[in-house]
Amino acid sequence: MLNDDAPEPRSGDAGGLTGRIASGPDPLLRAEVLEPQLRFEIEALLPGYVQLEKVLLLEYRRLGLLDGAQVGAIATLLDQVTPASIAEEAGESMSDMAFTLERYVSRRLAEVPPAWHVDRSRNDLQATAQLMYGRARLLDSAEALLAFGRTAHRLAGRSADLPMPGYTHMQPAQVISPGFYFAGVCDQVLHTLERLEAVYRTAGASPMGAGAMAGQELPWDRARMARLLGFPHVRTHALRAVAQRDWALEACAEFSMLGVALSRFATDLMTWGGAGCGFVDLPDHWSGISSAMPQKKNFPVLERIRARTAHLSAAYTDIAIGQRNTPYSNSVEVSKEANAGVPAAFDTLASVLRLFGAVLENLRFREDRMRDACSAEYLGGFTLANLLTLRAGVPWRTAQVVAGRYIVRAVERGLPPAEPDGPLLEALLAKEGHRTGDAVALLTEAMGLPGGLTAKRSDGSAHPDAVRALLAEQGCAFDEVAERWQARRTGVAEAAAALDRLLAGPEGRQ
Amino acid sequence: MLNDDAPEPRSGDAGGLTGRIASGPDPLLRAEVLEPQLRFEIEALLPGYVQLEKVLLLEYRRLGLLDGAQVGAIATLLDQVTPASIAEEAGESMSDMAFTLERYVSRRLAEVPPAWHVDRSRNDLQATAQLMYGRARLLDSAEALLAFGRTAHRLAGRSADLPMPGYTHMQPAQVISPGFYFAGVCDQVLHTLERLEAVYRTAGASPMGAGAMAGQELPWDRARMARLLGFPHVRTHALRAVAQRDWALEACAEFSMLGVALSRFATDLMTWGGAGCGFVDLPDHWSGISSAMPQKKNFPVLERIRARTAHLSAAYTDIAIGQRNTPYSNSVEVSKEANAGVPAAFDTLASVLRLFGAVLENLRFREDRMRDACSAEYLGGFTLANLLTLRAGVPWRTAQVVAGRYIVRAVERGLPPAEPDGPLLEALLAKEGHRTGDAVALLTEAMGLPGGLTAKRSDGSAHPDAVRALLAEQGCAFDEVAERWQARRTGVAEAAAALDRLLAGPEGRQ
Amino acid sequence: MLNDDAPEPRSGDAGGLTGRIASGPDPLLRAEVLEPQLRFEIEALLPGYVQLEKVLLLEYRRLGLLDGAQVGAIATLLDQVTPASIAEEAGESMSDMAFTLERYVSRRLAEVPPAWHVDRSRNDLQATAQLMYGRARLLDSAEALLAFGRTAHRLAGRSADLPMPGYTHMQPAQVISPGFYFAGVCDQVLHTLERLEAVYRTAGASPMGAGAMAGQELPWDRARMARLLGFPHVRTHALRAVAQRDWALEACAEFSMLGVALSRFATDLMTWGGAGCGFVDLPDHWSGISSAMPQKKNFPVLERIRARTAHLSAAYTDIAIGQRNTPYSNSVEVSKEANAGVPAAFDTLASVLRLFGAVLENLRFREDRMRDACSAEYLGGFTLANLLTLRAGVPWRTAQVVAGRYIVRAVERGLPPAEPDGPLLEALLAKEGHRTGDAVALLTEAMGLPGGLTAKRSDGSAHPDAVRALLAEQGCAFDEVAERWQARRTGVAEAAAALDRLLAGPEGRQ
Amino acid sequence: MLNDDAPEPRSGDAGGLTGRIASGPDPLLRAEVLEPQLRFEIEALLPGYVQLEKVLLLEYRRLGLLDGAQVGAIATLLDQVTPASIAEEAGESMSDMAFTLERYVSRRLAEVPPAWHVDRSRNDLQATAQLMYGRARLLDSAEALLAFGRTAHRLAGRSADLPMPGYTHMQPAQVISPGFYFAGVCDQVLHTLERLEAVYRTAGASPMGAGAMAGQELPWDRARMARLLGFPHVRTHALRAVAQRDWALEACAEFSMLGVALSRFATDLMTWGGAGCGFVDLPDHWSGISSAMPQKKNFPVLERIRARTAHLSAAYTDIAIGQRNTPYSNSVEVSKEANAGVPAAFDTLASVLRLFGAVLENLRFREDRMRDACSAEYLGGFTLANLLTLRAGVPWRTAQVVAGRYIVRAVERGLPPAEPDGPLLEALLAKEGHRTGDAVALLTEAMGLPGGLTAKRSDGSAHPDAVRALLAEQGCAFDEVAERWQARRTGVAEAAAALDRLLAGPEGRQ
Repeated sequence: MLNDDAPEPRSGDAGGLTGRIASGPDPLLRAEVLEPQLRFEIEALLPGYVQLEKVLLLEYRRLGLLDGAQVGAIATLLDQVTPASIAEEAGESMSDMAFTLERYVSRRLAEVPPAWHVDRSRNDLQATAQLMYGRARLLDSAEALLAFGRTAHRLAGRSADLPMPGYTHMQPAQVISPGFYFAGVCDQVLHTLERLEAVYRTAGASPMGAGAMAGQELPWDRARMARLLGFPHVRTHALRAVAQRDWALEACAEFSMLGVALSRFATDLMTWGGAGCGFVDLPDHWSGISSAMPQKKNFPVLERIRARTAHLSAAYTDIAIGQRNTPYSNSVEVSKEANAGVPAAFDTLASVLRLFGAVLENLRFREDRMRDACSAEYLGGFTLANLLTLRAGVPWRTAQVVAGRYIVRAVERGLPPAEPDGPLLEALLAKEGHRTGDAVALLTEAMGLPGGLTAKRSDGSAHPDAVRALLAEQGCAFDEVAERWQARRTGVAEAAAALDRLLAGPEGRQ
Repeated sequence: MLNDDAPEPRSGDAGGLTGRIASGPDPLLRAEVLEPQLRFEIEALLPGYVQLEKVLLLEYRRLGLLDGAQVGAIATLLDQVTPASIAEEAGESMSDMAFTLERYVSRRLAEVPPAWHVDRSRNDLQATAQLMYGRARLLDSAEALLAFGRTAHRLAGRSADLPMPGYTHMQPAQVISPGFYFAGVCDQVLHTLERLEAVYRTAGASPMGAGAMAGQELPWDRARMARLLGFPHVRTHALRAVAQRDWALEACAEFSMLGVALSRFATDLMTWGGAGCGFVDLPDHWSGISSAMPQKKNFPVLERIRARTAHLSAAYTDIAIGQRNTPYSNSVEVSKEANAGVPAAFDTLASVLRLFGAVLENLRFREDRMRDACSAEYLGGFTLANLLTLRAGVPWRTAQVVAGRYIVRAVERGLPPAEPDGPLLEALLAKEGHRTGDAVALLTEAMGLPGGLTAKRSDGSAHPDAVRALLAEQGCAFDEVAERWQARRTGVAEAAAALDRLLAGPEGRQ
Repeated sequence: MLNDDAPEPRSGDAGGLTGRIASGPDPLLRAEVLEPQLRFEIEALLPGYVQLEKVLLLEYRRLGLLDGAQVGAIATLLDQVTPASIAEEAGESMSDMAFTLERYVSRRLAEVPPAWHVDRSRNDLQATAQLMYGRARLLDSAEALLAFGRTAHRLAGRSADLPMPGYTHMQPAQVISPGFYFAGVCDQVLHTLERLEAVYRTAGASPMGAGAMAGQELPWDRARMARLLGFPHVRTHALRAVAQRDWALEACAEFSMLGVALSRFATDLMTWGGAGCGFVDLPDHWSGISSAMPQKKNFPVLERIRARTAHLSAAYTDIAIGQRNTPYSNSVEVSKEANAGVPAAFDTLASVLRLFGAVLENLRFREDRMRDACSAEYLGGFTLANLLTLRAGVPWRTAQVVAGRYIVRAVERGLPPAEPDGPLLEALLAKEGHRTGDAVALLTEAMGLPGGLTAKRSDGSAHPDAVRALLAEQGCAFDEVAERWQARRTGVAEAAAALDRLLAGPEGRQ
Repeated sequence: MLNDDAPEPRSGDAGGLTGRIASGPDPLLRAEVLEPQLRFEIEALLPGYVQLEKVLLLEYRRLGLLDGAQVGAIATLLDQVTPASIAEEAGESMSDMAFTLERYVSRRLAEVPPAWHVDRSRNDLQATAQLMYGRARLLDSAEALLAFGRTAHRLAGRSADLPMPGYTHMQPAQVISPGFYFAGVCDQVLHTLERLEAVYRTAGASPMGAGAMAGQELPWDRARMARLLGFPHVRTHALRAVAQRDWALEACAEFSMLGVALSRFATDLMTWGGAGCGFVDLPDHWSGISSAMPQKKNFPVLERIRARTAHLSAAYTDIAIGQRNTPYSNSVEVSKEANAGVPAAFDTLASVLRLFGAVLENLRFREDRMRDACSAEYLGGFTLANLLTLRAGVPWRTAQVVAGRYIVRAVERGLPPAEPDGPLLEALLAKEGHRTGDAVALLTEAMGLPGGLTAKRSDGSAHPDAVRALLAEQGCAFDEVAERWQARRTGVAEAAAALDRLLAGPEGRQ
């Protein structure tokens, strides 16, 4: 079944396949649709198509429809295929990849074996070739994300002891550290990596052998074909195998969600590098300048990163709405046009991760400014209230009120947090009927640096030890996930190698 | 830390918590923001908040900060809380849920234990309460999807032998059956159910104990708290635990993708029920009528279903873009407003599944029309070409051409597919230098019904046996997935029961 | 033609309208679809439906199909209709609004005039009633936006002389003023108000008289009906009149774009109110507090505003994708379900504008901090370079370099901008072969405040005079646009009054 | 002010502009960001930049800062600029377009005039150059849409008398004609063309002279600059002039909405060309074939068109969400990256319109099938009920019931609509207490073709005369709108010519 938007090639001798369509595609159709499609396929799908043809050769051999010599002749020609030769072959008739490969081989064979191509459809072939492309890009995406995560991980390891203000509602709230923050980034990355495994699982089910929509008429061994193509599973249901491109939809959904998270990380870096903070810096070759403010450097690369993540969400929108309300069947609409933006989505993700990784690689902390910012703010109010309750038995709600009042008064008096006013605290406590014998010590403990970081004791807190413990776990997790992704990559490569071995042996050309 | 958009309640006696803010919320703020928020929380989050308070009681007891009597007194009051009493308590001060609960209990206690509420934040509390809500709705969603899938499965089982035309590009292409089609629907449903498990895994990591953003200062046992709340994991990193609502984003992404698939299934049902097909019917109480065309029935419910799925994709857009470019921190923006549409997304999904399930439950096939439509079309052209190659040794490409020409000529002559013209086929073959001794038999085999269905032999094909085999597998898969979801639901309920037991015992009020 | 998803009512005596559908709607269909729809229509569309029925009465009279007494009897009943009575009437049969009104009237008439309801469709009726609703909401939206704009305008007028840093790339760049900034907000608002006029123009074309899809059979006077309904135009093409809801799509597109702009304004306010700036403040009843940082106030209302604007873009997505790939015809899909979120979009816009307006109303500037921030930064580097070129003839590129070097050296030496170092500037110039006799004067002019504001001379600049000139223009523009919107509102009201007068007179009931 | 993401070029001799940034851009930054950006700008923005430089020359001359000879020397060099020479110039330093042009000219001048480039910003320059690009593409888009509309208009004119079934809810409802349908398409196109004028109005306000964000320091004549650039207006407010790219946002919104409408038209063509209808055909060079169904032709081009319209809505999403939550200021984010997809959106629109126009150009109607489909259905039920009321005085509701019953009985008996059964109608009427003396005549009038079309009498109906009247109006409207768009194009061209004349004269180089 040839239900593609590329009409079949006119064979010079026979006046076309069925005589039903008497003329080639309109030049406008060629220019707007067919040529861009084929250019993309030659660039992206050709290796998959060749591998598929080899698998089909093995199946025809197994089914007794081709003999070893026939298999050998065709396989030899398939191994000679190059993008350039295929482009040339296609140029004359502007058909699709399957036909072009058939023509390429047929014209170079002394005799075309009668049963070659029997009981085949372009639908499952195309779905599978696209999936092989998607699989390769998913492997690359996971690798890129892993590299980004490792970069964040190293950065976190270097900066777990540097105090800096953490913000809520744009206001300094608690002392954190870059190490703590970037451990959070790592956590997000690991989460996405895990979810990408589910997408890869979707991409692991081979459509091959599904035919056009209803299955095929010869006893094709779908499990074997899947194995030879490096797919762990078969997408059994024939219609679902050709009607859907879930892997692309799910990949774009994942990228969109990752993009949302990355846009937030970029926002924080912008704030940290912006006016009023100045906590981070980038070297000159990653910065922009402004002639109006020559003492300042801008970090437009962060704006690029942030805005590029928007393309990821738009790409998801594109593929999702392009599929809506279409028949659940193989169609040009779903199999090609709705997916047209998917390669660009992969590219955008890769670009975002490369740029963001380079930013993290190059990020320098201005420790003095971070420390000053912590010292300038009463970030220990919460700790003070805790201490009043736990050490001096002040009821919690009262402790909160007193801590608040202390800070308000101290700020009014221009006292920095590092200069505790014991009598003031005692006076405020007394008004509520409480006292602590050791006001200065409590204040020092609550407000002093680096007490801010070490006051936290819970798992997953900003305490440097807690951060380091989490980073150690994350390091293992990165190793494990890296191993799994590497194994997937190896599996794909090994399947291709095994396929060539089979073709060379008694099940193939011998 | 109270970093919410609900200002703290003014306590009548003390002039407010910190003296910092001297007046209650503006009436406009109340009406537009605070009241709707609290109404939602009372309706949706109250049970979670109560359960959380109980867990905190156990922790305070474990930490030696409350004694059994204090725990008992508070637990007793918590058990008396009702939506109405909380609404009344909140009405006066329009604060958030955590404060309202605190006030409710405090005003009814003879003495508020000093350390109750020490070292607590509203941020992780709120994140956890929302997660408990989301978890419950995910459980319901999975159940609803499972029920829909089972309905499709039953329908498929009843209709695997009915031939009907399958369409590609809106044209009849191959013989399929409703059973085959709905087995594809089941496959999609099972796929989504599996992916929902990943979302539920995201929703299985407890934020409790993360504090405001940087962790907490007492040695809270985060793993124990998670267990008591029925969460299998801890979301360790404190910032990530409160800055994200991944579960909601991921749930909406999943619903969006499911919605895309459902919109396509609904499209096919519309086509089947529409003019020119008339393959399916719905009973009167599921149909609309048209006075202009009284002999026709409309199926507006399909339009409702299809358009409602659009809301699911819009809900994903809403939550995703509401989070973009915000700081990675706890915020009203991400934790409340960006999620504001999530409950409606759950409702929409439930409604779509209920309506679509009812449609499948009530769907009737007009077997005669389906069969007639198959008979009227030359759906066996592909089979004929296969047979010419496999039985008569005609080279595949030639076989395709000849099969095509045969059909074109037969259609020109007005021959129906069921009336084979053996001499015509032989004549066409002869022109290409081939012959088959048995043209009529080949034609009959290729074009006859129900040969269309049984001609397919591959796994996952439309052959009734293949469909039944797949349905059997799917039946098992539904059972397994149902069991897993049921176990999750049970786990949540058991945790709540265990919590109450603990509270009643020596680790609690004794 | 009754092509709605509400089946027709069962008339008790006759066993249903056509005998074609034998049973009422399924309870699930009622609960999920019909009841919510009718509830909405009673709340939102009833006045429009009643007005439409009156117009139809006048047309039936004009066509000689009803006499004055018949018109009078029906009109009297229509004037008695209330939401409650219609809800009661509907309750029994759960039909749509048109039927319910017909029933309500018919059951109260001694005799139903035979020709009442002849040649009518529910399709154009519903399209028109929805349009009347949309028109009213557009009028309210324009008014709300106007009020918001006026608030920004007043704020701008009060603050055109206050210097503050303007930021690009998160870095202080040039001196601006709040007045300048909010004049920009006004400009955006005026732009949107102008674009809303185009949407209102779309909403000004009456579908009435289009029938079901192909037009009607009596010589209805569509222009007169439009006039009586307060529509300036007729949507002539019958199919387009009922197949589209452009006004809703276009309104949501406009709100989405406005939302994008408002999200950016909110972002700036967040920055100005956030750490490191502290330029603006809100009174307590518009603020949130944080117990951890009692000296700080949060402004969560800004987060609410910003995140709510995301709902506006999501609403556009919803209606747009709900319509995609549907037939171009009247359908439940496009006419009802795809539009289901439109009322909420109007509500959200109103809420955002009310909240944002209140924020602007309550915004206080911390002039000292704004001034200090200007003084702390070398915002006059660009001016200095200009002066070097224009006063001292230094080539522009060299002037830029020298100005930059001066600032870098001055910052290194810890010099504030207000302390010019003439010799340094001369030395740097000398190295490039230039001199200015008056380095201190140039530096003072370039770096001094409020020179920053008055250095700008172009139209539309931050110079207070330029701002005031622009504000004066904007004031006029607001007046003009307000007048136009008021005229539209008046026009609608006058049409309704004229309709009642006509009904009372010789063309109506007399 | 150089607040771009392209760092300034290192000038070989001077060690860089300010000494602040010591190294060129990182190779990754070049590859991922700078080179693609500059490639795009050279391809798309160069002519605008050159024209802008010429306008600036005239202003410098007017301000007395350059003399005629200086202007002449620079203008001569500007006229020699080519994409290739600029690409070469840029290659070394990878800066932005403004710098590259400056360098290109400076290196070829004997002496660079000191004041050339004084008081300039890259921000308004870039905003204006982009706007000139956008303006050109808007002109092309309007032209393409106009051409598409004219094609639909011609098609409508040829087919206003051909009866075909019109569908609601996928069921045949009333008789319409292709002419009627495509007049609706024309109406939609005219509507969008009118709305595009509003977008062009947005694009007609010149940002030039706004400076970096706060305005400029010399008395630039912004109105004159606008005029010389062919802009009818000035975007006065300086910040708004550089902070926004409304034209791009609004253009994409418009394309998105047009895309939604086009997707619906494509859906109808798919239905008409699909199984069960077969009303339309395309010639072979616009069709696809299927070897499985050789007698069928597919129309994949319709799927391409429909799915491509999804890209238009995704492009709107992209630009809208890329801008959300960014500062309202000039930024790389809003001015470049968020807009990155806009050129592709213009391309997609052009492609969709070309392809869809070609489809309409090539569309052939199968009149016999359309007529047969009308004859096979009782499309005149509504007319019959009308006639019963108007001719025989049967109350409307009863007339509806009787018409419905008649059709149900007739269908049961297998009567085609063209064979009226007078006694049956009378019998049904009698049961309700009515009669008409002329049942057969009424039935013939109601059910006969082409009565279906001519039964409609209202303005805008499917009656061929009404269609022709509307088409005549639309023809005038197309002419008028074409004239307006042509005038805009001419205005732009004339401004460029006038600019060159001025440059050659006493205000320029003389």
